[in-house]
Amino acid sequence: MKTLFMLLVVLSSLIGRVAIAQDKFSGEDGYRLWLKYDLIEDNAQRQQYSHTLQSLFIAPQSDTTRIIQHELKIASHGLLSQPIKPAANAKQASLLMLKSDSPELKQFKIHHDLNKLGQEGYLLHSTADQMLIIANSDIGLLYGTFDLLRRIQTGQSLNKLDHIEIPKIQLRMLNHWDDLDRHTERGYAGESIFDWHKLPDYKEQRYYDYARANASIGINGIVPNNVNANSLILTPAYLQKVKALADIFRPYGIKVYLSIKFSSPQQIGGLDTSDPAEQKVHDWWQKKTDEIYALIPDFGGYLVKANSEGQPGPGDYGRTHAEGANMLARALKPHGGNVLWRAFVYAHDAKAERSLQAYNEFVPLDGKFDDNVSVQVKNGPIDFQPREPFSPLFGAMPHTSLAMEFQITQEYLGFSTHLAYLGTLYEEALDADTHTEGPGSTVAKVIDGSLDSLPLTAMAGVANIGMDRNWTGHIFGQANWYVFGRLAWNDQLSAADIADEWIKMTLTDDKQSVNTIKDMMMGSRELIVDYMTPLGLHHLMDTGHHYGPGPWVDNLGRADWNPTYYHRADEQGIGLDRTASGTNAISQYAPYWQKIFADPKKTPQELLLWFHHLSWDYTMPSGDTLWNELVKHYYHGAKGVEKMQKQWLAIKDQIEPNQFEQVKMALAIQVKEAKWWRDACVLYFQTFSKRPIPEGLERPEHSLEYYQSLKFPYAPGQG
Amino acid sequence: MKTLFMLLVVLSSLIGRVAIAQDKFSGEDGYRLWLKYDLIEDNAQRQQYSHTLQSLFIAPQSDTTRIIQHELKIASHGLLSQPIKPAANAKQASLLMLKSDSPELKQFKIHHDLNKLGQEGYLLHSTADQMLIIANSDIGLLYGTFDLLRRIQTGQSLNKLDHIEIPKIQLRMLNHWDDLDRHTERGYAGESIFDWHKLPDYKEQRYYDYARANASIGINGIVPNNVNANSLILTPAYLQKVKALADIFRPYGIKVYLSIKFSSPQQIGGLDTSDPAEQKVHDWWQKKTDEIYALIPDFGGYLVKANSEGQPGPGDYGRTHAEGANMLARALKPHGGNVLWRAFVYAHDAKAERSLQAYNEFVPLDGKFDDNVSVQVKNGPIDFQPREPFSPLFGAMPHTSLAMEFQITQEYLGFSTHLAYLGTLYEEALDADTHTEGPGSTVAKVIDGSLDSLPLTAMAGVANIGMDRNWTGHIFGQANWYVFGRLAWNDQLSAADIADEWIKMTLTDDKQSVNTIKDMMMGSRELIVDYMTPLGLHHLMDTGHHYGPGPWVDNLGRADWNPTYYHRADEQGIGLDRTASGTNAISQYAPYWQKIFADPKKTPQELLLWFHHLSWDYTMPSGDTLWNELVKHYYHGAKGVEKMQKQWLAIKDQIEPNQFEQVKMALAIQVKEAKWWRDACVLYFQTFSKRPIPEGLERPEHSLEYYQSLKFPYAPGQG
Repeated sequence: MKTLFMLLVVLSSLIGRVAIAQDKFSGEDGYRLWLKYDLIEDNAQRQQYSHTLQSLFIAPQSDTTRIIQHELKIASHGLLSQPIKPAANAKQASLLMLKSDSPELKQFKIHHDLNKLGQEGYLLHSTADQMLIIANSDIGLLYGTFDLLRRIQTGQSLNKLDHIEIPKIQLRMLNHWDDLDRHTERGYAGESIFDWHKLPDYKEQRYYDYARANASIGINGIVPNNVNANSLILTPAYLQKVKALADIFRPYGIKVYLSIKFSSPQQIGGLDTSDPAEQKVHDWWQKKTDEIYALIPDFGGYLVKANSEGQPGPGDYGRTHAEGANMLARALKPHGGNVLWRAFVYAHDAKAERSLQAYNEFVPLDGKFDDNVSVQVKNGPIDFQPREPFSPLFGAMPHTSLAMEFQITQEYLGFSTHLAYLGTLYEEALDADTHTEGPGSTVAKVIDGSLDSLPLTAMAGVANIGMDRNWTGHIFGQANWYVFGRLAWNDQLSAADIADEWIKMTLTDDKQSVNTIKDMMMGSRELIVDYMTPLGLHHLMDTGHHYGPGPWVDNLGRADWNPTYYHRADEQGIGLDRTASGTNAISQYAPYWQKIFADPKKTPQELLLWFHHLSWDYTMPSGDTLWNELVKHYYHGAKGVEKMQKQWLAIKDQIEPNQFEQVKMALAIQVKEAKWWRDACVLYFQTFSKRPIPEGLERPEHSLEYYQSLKFPYAPGQG
Repeated sequence: MKTLFMLLVVLSSLIGRVAIAQDKFSGEDGYRLWLKYDLIEDNAQRQQYSHTLQSLFIAPQSDTTRIIQHELKIASHGLLSQPIKPAANAKQASLLMLKSDSPELKQFKIHHDLNKLGQEGYLLHSTADQMLIIANSDIGLLYGTFDLLRRIQTGQSLNKLDHIEIPKIQLRMLNHWDDLDRHTERGYAGESIFDWHKLPDYKEQRYYDYARANASIGINGIVPNNVNANSLILTPAYLQKVKALADIFRPYGIKVYLSIKFSSPQQIGGLDTSDPAEQKVHDWWQKKTDEIYALIPDFGGYLVKANSEGQPGPGDYGRTHAEGANMLARALKPHGGNVLWRAFVYAHDAKAERSLQAYNEFVPLDGKFDDNVSVQVKNGPIDFQPREPFSPLFGAMPHTSLAMEFQITQEYLGFSTHLAYLGTLYEEALDADTHTEGPGSTVAKVIDGSLDSLPLTAMAGVANIGMDRNWTGHIFGQANWYVFGRLAWNDQLSAADIADEWIKMTLTDDKQSVNTIKDMMMGSRELIVDYMTPLGLHHLMDTGHHYGPGPWVDNLGRADWNPTYYHRADEQGIGLDRTASGTNAISQYAPYWQKIFADPKKTPQELLLWFHHLSWDYTMPSGDTLWNELVKHYYHGAKGVEKMQKQWLAIKDQIEPNQFEQVKMALAIQVKEAKWWRDACVLYFQTFSKRPIPEGLERPEHSLEYYQSLKFPYAPGQG
C-alpha cells in the first residue's frame, strides 16, 4: 500500500508537468496536424483497438520499419495508453507486418494476387484475433500502418478487414515555391521550412516531422525549390544540401525532385548556349544528372517552368517544349528519373486570349514527349482562380502523360486567413467530364492514366506549408494539405468523406461538432467564389500580391495581367465572350461542351461570365437581372462567412482552446475581408451598370475611392 | 483499494500521453527558454520551496496580477508538482504580494524606505513562515515574482531574505532590426516574430510568450521595427498594428517604441521638406506623435538612425543631430516619451578614419540635447566586432545621456551556428575604465548615469530573436538574450554568475555539467576573436552578409567598407596605425589611455593591431614574432572549438536529447567554420608576410584561391 501510494505521488507529479506544458503553451498549437493520437475516451472502442495494438511482429529491420515501430509506439501510447510490445514470433503477435515474401505469410489464407500491390500498395487483413498488414515493400507497410491508425483515429471497425489499397496515381507530389533565401512565392504560413543556409549539417526536427506527415497521406515526392528556379540549386554546395534532405526523406518513401532553370548550362555551366539541339548542352545535362544520382541514387527528376513569365526555355532557340523536355528526360532515363514539364505558359504567343495559349502550344506536341515526361497542367486554363472550368488540355493529349497541378496554398482564395476547404474544388476538377472520348472521360481518368492507358501518372500540389507553428497558417489549411494527399492516392474518394476523416483526427470527435465543421468546410470555397468572383468572374484581385480586390486595375505591362482584361465590364454589361463571336476559347473543348458553352442559357450559371459577355439586364434563371444576381452573390458570400463564424463560436467547448482561438481570429478577419471584397467589387461594377444595390442589402461601408486607395506593399508571398 | 487502482489506471493513461508528447516532438525543443520549471528532483530542496509556494495573497486584480498568478501557478505545478492556492487572507498566506500602500503591510516590520523602490523595484522579505514581495507597482511585483522563481530554479535558499532590487538602468530595451516584410537585418533565427500582415487582428501566442520572457529578465521596452526604418510604420494602418502589440505587452511592463524615418514628413506627410528648423515639420511630428499617444497612451518614443549609411537626417538641411533629436523630443515631451538617437554615423564626414567619426560629430553637441534624448552609442567605435576597445564617446559627453547599444544577434560572431557567450563581451565593455573623470570612470557608470548624475539611462540590445522554434537559432543564443537583460537591470552582475543562472534554468542542474558548460561559455567569445580577428584585427568578414572570411576584399564603394582598410597588411607588417603617426584616433581617449595606446609595448595585446601597424617580425611579449603569434592565435581559436565540442559530447547524458542534438549540430558547423576562418586568413596574410606557418601546425585544407572563390549570395540577414 505504501508503495502504491508513493507511486501515486510520483505519478501525480508527472501529471503536474503535463498540465503545465499545456497551460504554458496554450495546449494544442496545431503542430501535431492530423496525427494527434489523443486518448480515445470511449472505453469500449478503446478496448477493441487495444487488442489489435497489443504486440507487433515486424521483420527485418530497416530505417522504414523503425519508423513504423516508432509510429505504432506513440500511437498506441496516445490513443490507448498502452505500450505495443514486440511479439516473440508471428503466432503470438496481435499485429503482423509482413512482406509478401515472408515465410510467416504461409500460415495465413490470403486470396489476393499480392503482385498487384506493386511497390506502394498494401493489404489490410484481419483474422479472428490477428491483424495483418502485407506489402511488397517497407513503404507499403508504412502506408498500411497509417491506414490502420487512421481507422482507429476515426473510430472505424477493424473486424473482417480484407482491404487492398493501391495508389491510383504514381507520383504524388508537393511543389514548394520556396526560394533559396527562404522567401516563399505565394506562401502565407511564414518563410520556407527549408533552411538552405544551415543545410546540410543542421537537420531541423521539422524535416522529419514534415516527412512523416506526408507519408501519412501518401505523398511520395517533393520539390523543395521554386519553379521560378535559381540555377544555383544545381551547384555542388547546394546539391550537398539537397542530398541531406533526400537522406532524411528516403525512409518515409519520399523522393526529392528539383525545379531547374533551363538556362543552367550557361548560368553555372560556362556554356554559351542552352539550346537543347546542341550536343554540348545534352552532355552538360547528362553529366550534371549523373552527378546528382551519385549523391542521391533515388533522385526523382526535374520540374520545369520554361518559356513562361520570363523564364528561359527551348523556345529561346526555336525549339519546342517537347525538344526541351526530352533532352532532360534522356539524361534522367538511365537513372529512372522523370521530367515534370509545366504547361502553364502564356508568354510565347501573346496574340491569343490567355486561356487559349497552353492548348495552342501543347496539343500539337501530343505524342512527341518521351515516356518519362509528364506535362503538368493546372486544373483550369487561367491560374488557380476560385473557380475555373477544367483546362481544355485534359483529354486533348491522349498520347501524353498529363499531370494535374493543384494549388494548395491560397494565392487567390484569401491567403491563410480565409477558411477555404479545397477538397470541393479538387473534386469538381477531377470529376469534370471532358467528353473527349465520350461520356465518362473524366479529368480523373486522364490524370490516373485509365482513360488512355498511360503508365506515367502524377498529381502535384503547390504547398501551403511554412514555418508557422501550425504549418499552414490557418488550422483549416491543414485540411487542404491532407485532402490533396488523399485524393492523389485515390482520386475517387469524396471531399466530404475526407473532410470527415480530417476533422475527427484534427479537431474533435464530437458528432454534432463534426457535422457543423463539415458543413462549414463543404460550403466554404463557394462562399469565397461568391464574395470574390461569382458567376464565372475571375482574376479580379489586386496587383502582384493578389491580396484584396482590384477589379479596376488596367495599367499593367501586359493586357492579360489586368483584371479589366477578364471582366470586360462596360455600360452594356459584363463578362468575357469566349464563344465564336469572341475569343472562341470554347473551340478547345469537346463538341459536347462547345454546344453548352456557346449558349448562355445552357452554360452552368457558375461559369456564365467566364464564357459570355451579357447585358446587365440579362434575365437569369431566377428571373432576376444579371446585375441583381451578381450583387446578391457578393452579399451571399459575405453573409455566409458570418454564418461560419457563428457556427464556429457555437462549438467552442468541443475544440482545444488554442485551435479554437486561432480559427476564431482568422474568421474575424475573413468576415471583414469578405465585406471588403463585396463592397469594392459592387461599387466598382456599379460605375458601369448604373443600377442600384437591391433593396434590403446593407450599403457599402466606404466609398469606391477608399477601396481603390488601399495599398499593401508588404503583403506576403509576392512573386 | 479498487478506487485507488482505477486512479492509477487513469494516471498511467495520462502519463502515456506525456511520454508521447515528448517522444513525438523530441522533448525539449528550446521554446520554453529559461522558464522551463521542470520538477526539482531533490526532495529536501523541493520541500523547502513547497512551503513558500503553498498559498498566495495578492490584491487587487489587474492584468499584471493575473499574469503573476498564472506564472506562480505553472511554476508551482512544474517545479514542485503542487498547486498554489489562493489564501483567504494575508495572515494565512505563505506568499504575499503587497503594494507598499497595502493595509496588510502594517503587520510586518519593514525597515526600508519603500519610496526608493520606484516604479520597478521590489523588496523580497522573508519571515519565519512567510515570504513577502513588496513593490510600489504591479510591475514591481511581477519582477519580484520572477526573482523569487529564479532563486527557486537555481536552488538558492529563501531563508532570511531582505533583499532590495532596483534596476540600475531605466530603459532596458530590445531593438529588433525587423522589416515590415518580416525580413530581419542581421537576423539568423528565422524571420521576424512580428507578422505585420496579420496584425492587428491575429495575435500570435508567441507575442505573449515573448513578452513574458522579456519581463522575466527585466526588459521594459521594445522597438519592433528596423532602425533602417520604413516610413509606413507611422501610417494609420500600421499604427493599429503597433497598438495591438502595445496592448499585449503592457501588462508585462513593456513599452513599445518605434524606429522612425527622419524624412517621414515628406514620405507619408505630403510635406516638401523634413527640415527640423521648419515649423510645419515640427507641427507634423507633433500631430503624428499625438495620434500615436491617442492609441498607445504609454508609447515609449522614437529610435532614430539619421545621416548614417544613407539614411536621411537633419544633416540633409545643415542641421545638427541635436536639432533633429530635439524636434522629436519636444513632440514626445508632453506625453512622457523619449528619443533614442543613434551615434552610429560614418557617412557625414568621410575624410576622417571611420573610428573617429562618431566622436567628431557628437562631442561638440554635448549639452545640446533635450533631457528626454539619449544618444545611443555602440560599445566600440567601429561596429560590433568580436573585440573592440570601448567607444571614446563614453565619458566624453558628460552633459548628455548616453545609452549603450550592444548587439545580441551575432552579425560578426558566427551567426546562429557559433557558440559565443556574449556576457564576457558586455562585461568587458561595461567594466572598461574611461578615466575621463579619473580612475573608476567606467563605461557602466556613464551608462547608468552615476558618473555624471544624469537621470535618463538606457541600454539597448539588438535582438537575436526570430521564428525559429528555439527563438534564437542556437540554444546558447538564448543566453545572450538573457545576459543582456540581466546586465541592463544590474550592470554590476558578473557574466559568470549570470551564465551559471542561465545554465541551471535552461540546461541542467548537474553540478559537473554546469561547470563544463560554464567553462565553454566563458571562453567561447575569445575563441571566436582568435579564429576570426585576433590581436586587435577587425572587420575581416566577407561583403554584405558578413558570413565567413573576406580579408582580401578591397573593391567596395567606400574605402572604409573594405577589410583591407582595417588590417593594412603589406610586406612590412600588419595593423592600422591609430597613433599620432597614423589616424590619431587615440587622441579621442583620456590622456591615461593615450599614453598606453601610443606605445605598442603598453597596449593590451588583444588590441595591438587595432592601434598599431607592426612588422611581421615585431617581438611579442612571448618572445615570438608577431607573424608566429598571429598564426598561433588563429590555430588556438580553431582548436578551442574542437575542445568545446568534446566537452559538449561528454555531458550528453545530462542534457535533454533535442537540446543536446541542436547544440551538437551547431558545434560541428562551428568546428568546420573556425578552420575555414583560420585557413583563409592565415593563407591570405601569408601572401604578405612570406613566412611559413610554424612547425607542428596542420596545413590548411584548401588553397587561398579556393577560399576566395566561395560565394554565399543567400546567406541570411543581409541588410
